[in-house]
Amino acid sequence: MSTTIAAISTPPGIGGIAVIRLSGPKAFEIAAHHVQLPPQGSTTGFALFHAGGKTLDEVVVTVFHAPHSYTGEDTVEISCHGSIYVQQTLLRCLIESGALLAEPGEFTRRAFLNGKLNLSQAEAVADLIDSTNAASHQLALSQLRGGYAQLLAQLRNQLVDLTSLLELELDFSEEDVEFADRSQLRNLVAELQQEVTRLTGSFKLGNAVKNGIPVAIVGRPNAGKSSLLNALLSDQRAIVSPIPGTTRDTIEENLNIDGLTFRFIDTAGLRHSDDPIETIGFDRAIQSIRQATVVLIVRDASVTFDEYSVDDISYLLRDIPQKDKIIFIIHNKADLATPPYPPGKAISALTGMGIEDLKQSIAKAVRQRMPSSDGAMLTNLRHYQALQQVSASLDEVAQGLDGGLPADLVAIDLRNALYHLGTITGEVTSNEILGTIFHRFCIGK
Amino acid sequence: MSTTIAAISTPPGIGGIAVIRLSGPKAFEIAAHHVQLPPQGSTTGFALFHAGGKTLDEVVVTVFHAPHSYTGEDTVEISCHGSIYVQQTLLRCLIESGALLAEPGEFTRRAFLNGKLNLSQAEAVADLIDSTNAASHQLALSQLRGGYAQLLAQLRNQLVDLTSLLELELDFSEEDVEFADRSQLRNLVAELQQEVTRLTGSFKLGNAVKNGIPVAIVGRPNAGKSSLLNALLSDQRAIVSPIPGTTRDTIEENLNIDGLTFRFIDTAGLRHSDDPIETIGFDRAIQSIRQATVVLIVRDASVTFDEYSVDDISYLLRDIPQKDKIIFIIHNKADLATPPYPPGKAISALTGMGIEDLKQSIAKAVRQRMPSSDGAMLTNLRHYQALQQVSASLDEVAQGLDGGLPADLVAIDLRNALYHLGTITGEVTSNEILGTIFHRFCIGK
Repeated sequence: MSTTIAAISTPPGIGGIAVIRLSGPKAFEIAAHHVQLPPQGSTTGFALFHAGGKTLDEVVVTVFHAPHSYTGEDTVEISCHGSIYVQQTLLRCLIESGALLAEPGEFTRRAFLNGKLNLSQAEAVADLIDSTNAASHQLALSQLRGGYAQLLAQLRNQLVDLTSLLELELDFSEEDVEFADRSQLRNLVAELQQEVTRLTGSFKLGNAVKNGIPVAIVGRPNAGKSSLLNALLSDQRAIVSPIPGTTRDTIEENLNIDGLTFRFIDTAGLRHSDDPIETIGFDRAIQSIRQATVVLIVRDASVTFDEYSVDDISYLLRDIPQKDKIIFIIHNKADLATPPYPPGKAISALTGMGIEDLKQSIAKAVRQRMPSSDGAMLTNLRHYQALQQVSASLDEVAQGLDGGLPADLVAIDLRNALYHLGTITGEVTSNEILGTIFHRFCIGK
Repeated sequence: MSTTIAAISTPPGIGGIAVIRLSGPKAFEIAAHHVQLPPQGSTTGFALFHAGGKTLDEVVVTVFHAPHSYTGEDTVEISCHGSIYVQQTLLRCLIESGALLAEPGEFTRRAFLNGKLNLSQAEAVADLIDSTNAASHQLALSQLRGGYAQLLAQLRNQLVDLTSLLELELDFSEEDVEFADRSQLRNLVAELQQEVTRLTGSFKLGNAVKNGIPVAIVGRPNAGKSSLLNALLSDQRAIVSPIPGTTRDTIEENLNIDGLTFRFIDTAGLRHSDDPIETIGFDRAIQSIRQATVVLIVRDASVTFDEYSVDDISYLLRDIPQKDKIIFIIHNKADLATPPYPPGKAISALTGMGIEDLKQSIAKAVRQRMPSSDGAMLTNLRHYQALQQVSASLDEVAQGLDGGLPADLVAIDLRNALYHLGTITGEVTSNEILGTIFHRFCIGK
């Protein structure tokens, strides 16, 4: 961190302007080799970029004095003409004057190390840059704005208090006192576990929102699953034919509805068949249901809805835990049937009837399961895994307390829980963890 | 220009940060709908970007008060996270708050219309952004920094003075006086013509430097032209074989040498052949020589250099004006020959001997023909064509003066010259010209 780093922070390629960022103790000194810095009291100024006696560009220079910058260090941003040649030449000049080429995410890494962001906020920066829809963008921004960091800090403070009390007993171990009321401790641990479980429980949907919410389209052969996919996409993506069993591979397509990205998965018709290819397709369809957040069970509405139909649906869903799934029964070909339709969504993939309503219903159902804008939702696999470790450690603590284990042993499990909690926001960290996290950043951020 | 325009000014795509630019009378007002502008006296500030009650991003806002901005108008630059989603969402919010989406080059067009740049400087901005090597970059920058605009302004002033004197005579036409000394006028016109000719003369090389300097590699079959191309590129680009006539198409490859981009053109061997394909190749080779700035005549050094060789070379160059060309005689396969070599460059494409020296010699020869850094060099076809019109008008003026034409007729030709001169820097312009010029800009500049 005693070095000064430089990189092009704007997207690679040709544009109107590009921004080169310089951060570190010598940022001003290095920049001053090439440009006139804005006068005292001013942050922004027009300047000529010079090197080796030549003028290389007309630029705008903005200075940020430590600690009032993104990285917390002295920072200079040079806004130059967006030619690739100009960008690279100016960057090279700064490197030749003593700056080091920044590694991916190194600016944000410095922001973290200087206490400008905690680790989960730093990770949110990368998520924000990767975000492709309103929902993943909102989740990343909420994490950047603090998100569940506050909640985690509360959990952590409570754990620290618990541990201190227990460790105080250790100092007085000769005297066999109990500073910590064991039943109060036990209650607190239960509360903490509940919070952790709530957070980890939000991961599956949170992760789906970030990466695309899987929607499995399943049903009997010839119910019109592929036609439904095409109708949803307003596209002839899947091959449709009146011949049952036309779709063999699972077909995936992304669709944005109301700020959420859905990953629609058209599956083979669910029937037992002697055709080995269809059998593989069947297994894949079942697999798709298991992984899906939303399941669209498509049936042919022109066929009478009777016990057989109900059995059919129950059969599809057997062995699959439905708690976390959003399930819609779709009565397709409703244009060929007579109302009233059975419970579910009556649609016609052929005429487009009910398609828009179905889309909105799917998005609404997902949104209802998402926390309100200030609620916490876990989207990061690393955080999820850390919280699972916290949960496991808290289990040990609970068992220890229930079993009357000595304070020093319980304290070890508490320290473990604290450790794993600390890895999320970065109170506890290692170069290895940081390396993994910041490696997925783009250069210049 | 009463509108306020907005665009993403950084290159398209994902990056650490992106910059959205807002310019026009309502730039501050529109930006203030979404961000807190920096406090009075400050130009840059951190802000949250809000829309519809939601926070959409953490941004840095920089304000430029008219006329102290690129466009000369009130300007706000919003530096946001470089996600495509974020960029587009923020831009959309600004549009919804009353900004218009900027057209390609519209910021620079406004800079021109507000007198921040003249037209040839505005064109230099696009050239600068397109520049891919040191030489084209320097030419564009020199044009942006004023370039031959000053020279043109001098020419223009002299023309204006001339015209005024002549037109003064018209006011007194009843009295038959001559305010303008005709022989002095005639000398001035000759001087102007000389300047114009010098400028137009620099166009061919200037244009080549901007778009890649064509180097034709020509010579007898099997002299090793394709091997030379490969050696220059350090690559097996062209197919080589001991069979004369292997190369039939002309092969082009770009190579950067010392900041200049060269376009090396390997041609078919120059011999008369009955093979119709080889004959077409021969014609193309001759065509390449005509268009080339540099011609490398390659011969086999292991064959004795005698009158026949000299004839050979003269034959190649017959009918081709050599004044503007840089010609090198290349004695290839010099590793198989015994020194001393005849005048020219002794090389071996096979062993790499002399290749680096040849490259440097080519670059040096071109640089020697380029003006020094403050000299004027014409790179823009539009300017070239305008100057040709100026030249034609000056010819008319000269003829008129020589033939004793009345002042009013001579004045018309002078006005013509002035008009065409004015189109270069934009004193005279039309929406059509502006449209053509700014259409080649990228959006956001």
